[in-house]
Amino acid sequence: MIRMGIIGTTGYTGMELYRLVSCHPEIEISFATSEQYSGQYLSEVFPRVDPHRDTILRSLDDIGEEQADVVCFCTPDGIAMDRVRGFLDRGVRVVDVSSDFRFDDPDVYEEWYNRPHATPELLDSAVYGIPELNREKIRTAFLVGNPGCYPTGVILGLAPLLEARAVDAGQIIIDAKSGVSGAGRGLKLRNLYVEVNDSITPYNIGHTHRHVGELEQELAKFSSAQPYVIFSPHLTPMSRGILATTYVHLVNGITNESLVEIYDKRYDREPFIRFSRSRYPETRFVTWTNYCDLRIDRVDGSDIAIITSAIDNLVKGAAGQALQNVNVMYGWDETTGLL
Amino acid sequence: MIRMGIIGTTGYTGMELYRLVSCHPEIEISFATSEQYSGQYLSEVFPRVDPHRDTILRSLDDIGEEQADVVCFCTPDGIAMDRVRGFLDRGVRVVDVSSDFRFDDPDVYEEWYNRPHATPELLDSAVYGIPELNREKIRTAFLVGNPGCYPTGVILGLAPLLEARAVDAGQIIIDAKSGVSGAGRGLKLRNLYVEVNDSITPYNIGHTHRHVGELEQELAKFSSAQPYVIFSPHLTPMSRGILATTYVHLVNGITNESLVEIYDKRYDREPFIRFSRSRYPETRFVTWTNYCDLRIDRVDGSDIAIITSAIDNLVKGAAGQALQNVNVMYGWDETTGLL
Amino acid sequence: MIRMGIIGTTGYTGMELYRLVSCHPEIEISFATSEQYSGQYLSEVFPRVDPHRDTILRSLDDIGEEQADVVCFCTPDGIAMDRVRGFLDRGVRVVDVSSDFRFDDPDVYEEWYNRPHATPELLDSAVYGIPELNREKIRTAFLVGNPGCYPTGVILGLAPLLEARAVDAGQIIIDAKSGVSGAGRGLKLRNLYVEVNDSITPYNIGHTHRHVGELEQELAKFSSAQPYVIFSPHLTPMSRGILATTYVHLVNGITNESLVEIYDKRYDREPFIRFSRSRYPETRFVTWTNYCDLRIDRVDGSDIAIITSAIDNLVKGAAGQALQNVNVMYGWDETTGLL
Amino acid sequence: MIRMGIIGTTGYTGMELYRLVSCHPEIEISFATSEQYSGQYLSEVFPRVDPHRDTILRSLDDIGEEQADVVCFCTPDGIAMDRVRGFLDRGVRVVDVSSDFRFDDPDVYEEWYNRPHATPELLDSAVYGIPELNREKIRTAFLVGNPGCYPTGVILGLAPLLEARAVDAGQIIIDAKSGVSGAGRGLKLRNLYVEVNDSITPYNIGHTHRHVGELEQELAKFSSAQPYVIFSPHLTPMSRGILATTYVHLVNGITNESLVEIYDKRYDREPFIRFSRSRYPETRFVTWTNYCDLRIDRVDGSDIAIITSAIDNLVKGAAGQALQNVNVMYGWDETTGLL
Repeated sequence: MIRMGIIGTTGYTGMELYRLVSCHPEIEISFATSEQYSGQYLSEVFPRVDPHRDTILRSLDDIGEEQADVVCFCTPDGIAMDRVRGFLDRGVRVVDVSSDFRFDDPDVYEEWYNRPHATPELLDSAVYGIPELNREKIRTAFLVGNPGCYPTGVILGLAPLLEARAVDAGQIIIDAKSGVSGAGRGLKLRNLYVEVNDSITPYNIGHTHRHVGELEQELAKFSSAQPYVIFSPHLTPMSRGILATTYVHLVNGITNESLVEIYDKRYDREPFIRFSRSRYPETRFVTWTNYCDLRIDRVDGSDIAIITSAIDNLVKGAAGQALQNVNVMYGWDETTGLL
Repeated sequence: MIRMGIIGTTGYTGMELYRLVSCHPEIEISFATSEQYSGQYLSEVFPRVDPHRDTILRSLDDIGEEQADVVCFCTPDGIAMDRVRGFLDRGVRVVDVSSDFRFDDPDVYEEWYNRPHATPELLDSAVYGIPELNREKIRTAFLVGNPGCYPTGVILGLAPLLEARAVDAGQIIIDAKSGVSGAGRGLKLRNLYVEVNDSITPYNIGHTHRHVGELEQELAKFSSAQPYVIFSPHLTPMSRGILATTYVHLVNGITNESLVEIYDKRYDREPFIRFSRSRYPETRFVTWTNYCDLRIDRVDGSDIAIITSAIDNLVKGAAGQALQNVNVMYGWDETTGLL
Repeated sequence: MIRMGIIGTTGYTGMELYRLVSCHPEIEISFATSEQYSGQYLSEVFPRVDPHRDTILRSLDDIGEEQADVVCFCTPDGIAMDRVRGFLDRGVRVVDVSSDFRFDDPDVYEEWYNRPHATPELLDSAVYGIPELNREKIRTAFLVGNPGCYPTGVILGLAPLLEARAVDAGQIIIDAKSGVSGAGRGLKLRNLYVEVNDSITPYNIGHTHRHVGELEQELAKFSSAQPYVIFSPHLTPMSRGILATTYVHLVNGITNESLVEIYDKRYDREPFIRFSRSRYPETRFVTWTNYCDLRIDRVDGSDIAIITSAIDNLVKGAAGQALQNVNVMYGWDETTGLL
Repeated sequence: MIRMGIIGTTGYTGMELYRLVSCHPEIEISFATSEQYSGQYLSEVFPRVDPHRDTILRSLDDIGEEQADVVCFCTPDGIAMDRVRGFLDRGVRVVDVSSDFRFDDPDVYEEWYNRPHATPELLDSAVYGIPELNREKIRTAFLVGNPGCYPTGVILGLAPLLEARAVDAGQIIIDAKSGVSGAGRGLKLRNLYVEVNDSITPYNIGHTHRHVGELEQELAKFSSAQPYVIFSPHLTPMSRGILATTYVHLVNGITNESLVEIYDKRYDREPFIRFSRSRYPETRFVTWTNYCDLRIDRVDGSDIAIITSAIDNLVKGAAGQALQNVNVMYGWDETTGLL
């Protein structure tokens, strides 16, 4: 039994993590923080919580000498980078679900986030947390940078092909559709029901969204050439879920069989990857789960193949993957608390 | 005042056309047919209809010698092709909102629809009905093939660029997202609320959807090279609306200014095209209207540009465009009954 | 042609009114105000607006000596009461779509709104604006208090029965379900997509919601006894529409025929009331229209009857009814611009 | 470890039960039937299922001599009544999630369902399966009639008050709002996305819906007087969830404290009942859970109190309650597999 602290519990990601961890047999929640609601019971903010597993929310500044074996930051961007060192120094392991520890290079971070990184010296030791692709490093990591929601499903779909030198890394087009919880729980006009309902819209398309930097960094690790991605996110009228439709150019001579084989080989034993030869991914089949559904379609008369992937942005795209990372870090069955 | 007959009134397209025509000052509805509900008042099937403009639905076979100046087919595919000749022979003009008269070549029709065309001799005289691109021919046409919902928004976005030789016709990727009414009112599991709500899914992606044939035929008319399109439709949890995100390769040396100029020049006087330099198209701003909203984004560091377009699949993508075609055919202001 | 000013244009009600008035043949919009967006084009805030009917938003304080024949306040509660006198003094007629001029008695206003009324001396001259029930007074009114969204559909359903002494005024239970636009465009957690989607919840039920005061005041005008209403509003995952289910106790001896007759007699010539013997009201049949759909069901084995009514809260429940009131005030056909 | 058979697995209730039982530590699924999809893997019909817990669907007629300790019928109405005896005769315990074994009296069944009961002799031994109210009988039952979705939440709200003689059983008004999955997975126009989305409608209101019979039968068991309920169901645009708003007349002299005490006493130790003094029930807080959220509001100036209750119609209203019943029948902790 280890003790976990959740920092930033009352956003959508923090609440999802609390929900998942509540059912985990090896973890007890030692504290849960919220600056906005500190002093209140979590169930007052988030009535879905099981009343027998309720807790009083605390301010991060009041945590004091509390002991935790691992903490998860579910805070807005820019907070974890100031706070992580304190935990690491006390020997506490950290999974940061915000974007602060996803980048290897502080200059690349600054380029995409328009501010200097507060603790660049920690970036070297941070491990990018997709267990299916990075399991060994996560096992011993003290600091895990949990991936962005969009990158998770896209990278899981692309990495096997890049690794097998089956596609051109320099011409990747990603057309992604996300539910509204991906935008967080902030009070913005854009998040209002009446503004979103029954409508779909693109935003920050091309080479401008912050996840482009994260995608290109991580895809490079599977590729001989430097990747270039075009990324078009769309806001879609649903609460949860991301569907990504990715267009790649195949290298000459690759057969359909070998495409399927590449995925089978890579993911055959992965409990959370469901690669299908027949069925298209649909977000409704993955929401509230840690699954990533994948499929690849080769286009007749063209060198293009289309990878479709579906995840729940709050689970495999955030809190579920964070818990999967913790399972790896502590050597438990990776599906513990996640099925 | 002309008399219009609506054939197939109780699908989503027929009901939308009835709604629009009811407010048109120059048209009276002389008959409205429905095989399933013949003998009932339209308002029993479609209570939204103004009770003072109600009508009794009739079977197409009972229409007999009724006079109409123009009829619109809102029937399922494969019906208009058997029935149109009878109307044409009596001098009645026809707008077919189904897919039967969109193709120039009966072999191409057969290739995409898997059945021979029943009246191939009529295809030559049928005019493809996008008024913004084909106005002169529509003016005098007796038979208009109203475009498919997906092709309408996509072609309006691509035609100016192809015409200006600004893009490579051989590499076009269209990622389209449609509301559920696009699938019609049929009793299919796929159309049930619980199967669609809060979920997004691709279907028939690549080079397989029937609209690929229609797209390639029409785009060829604006292009020196034979177009090749990859088309990925997605079912989206909203009642109406299509957003299409189209990726094209620009030819060398084209400037941002000239891209904007191409659209401005082409559509400056078009009442239903709203090209924006600033705002992304969103389906909520076009639903229940005949507008097509357009924008183009050039991607930094790449030869790719992204065209986004939004329409209401039932209005500009079907019934509204049919009425716009009728307005052109009779020489009325093209916006009559459509603002 | 008269000139109308719209005050508070960028909330949901103001935008709906702008949309409706844009198509009205007898009204030109002489100014449209917004404090938050003054100086911007309306189409930047509300892209749905026809670009040929766009306008620059202005601050109310900058209106100066502009002339308008009539102004409509679509402002939050508490603003019109300070500003109306200025317009009236210049001979401008006013329709207040906020709640400021719905009450006859300033003490009753204060009881329900927890603040004193700023211009109680104006209340006497204000006319409660349901044209179907109050047409004669509206015709000559200079100040119309446009009804609340919930009261509109409920009062239209109850007034004929109370008038006919068919029901007990002292025991009325109203269970109402409203779309989210009824809560306005404010940045509240409660209005976020993820908080509302796929969920229904009651709020302020019993005898506490502000519309209780308005309902009891107006129903009293049709009743010999003082009405007592229990009112339970529910927030429902849809953008627009109100369905109210009202439970009343019938007086002895009333027949089914006479119930139907009461409504037929009252509303037979009303263009916006659709009383049905067969079909239940559904909000989808009235959204984007000014209709109020009504039905009454007598419960076997009980003295209770159930009245169901459906309106669009933004149209018949707000902007549409405001325009209907203006039509009455100027002697035009009441449906002008509303069909 | 016991073996469970699920009969009728591919409707919404059967799929939910399969999902829940898959995670239950004491139950293995020995067979799952579907007449429509027999021979296919369940994951082909219901891709959400964990691929490692997949099964081949079988026809009920092919089950032969298979052994199961308990079977659950999730079939349409009218099937279980023909099939239950076979299982009982072999010593298999049965939970019928359809409506076939909810009634004590075959004449009452026939009155509400318009057909004679096929095995009326079994009704006596069937136990109505709300564990919170009927736990002792369920413990030893061989045949449990699982309650209807609407009755579950309503009865849980009313039983404590009736039992305490706090309300008048003869005047109960229930206004209920249900998500669309309550109507099943059948191909009906009424279930199509476009017909349901963004709309709310009443149906079968008054004293006509089949659940009226079930409600009056069960409420009578807690009441000295014969109950009379008026029941108004409404179809609401959400996939899951029921909110019931129930209006009762309080007997004289009852205090607010005693009302709260009645619930506290009754439900204090119930793991799935969350009675709140402060927060209104909302369906989003109970969907995907077996909770029933409850609240009571007394109306000032009236003898009326309003009980609001929320459940997930597929969980506490169907499959979850079925599993809770099985937990009771086998003496396991009642929350096993349900938290």
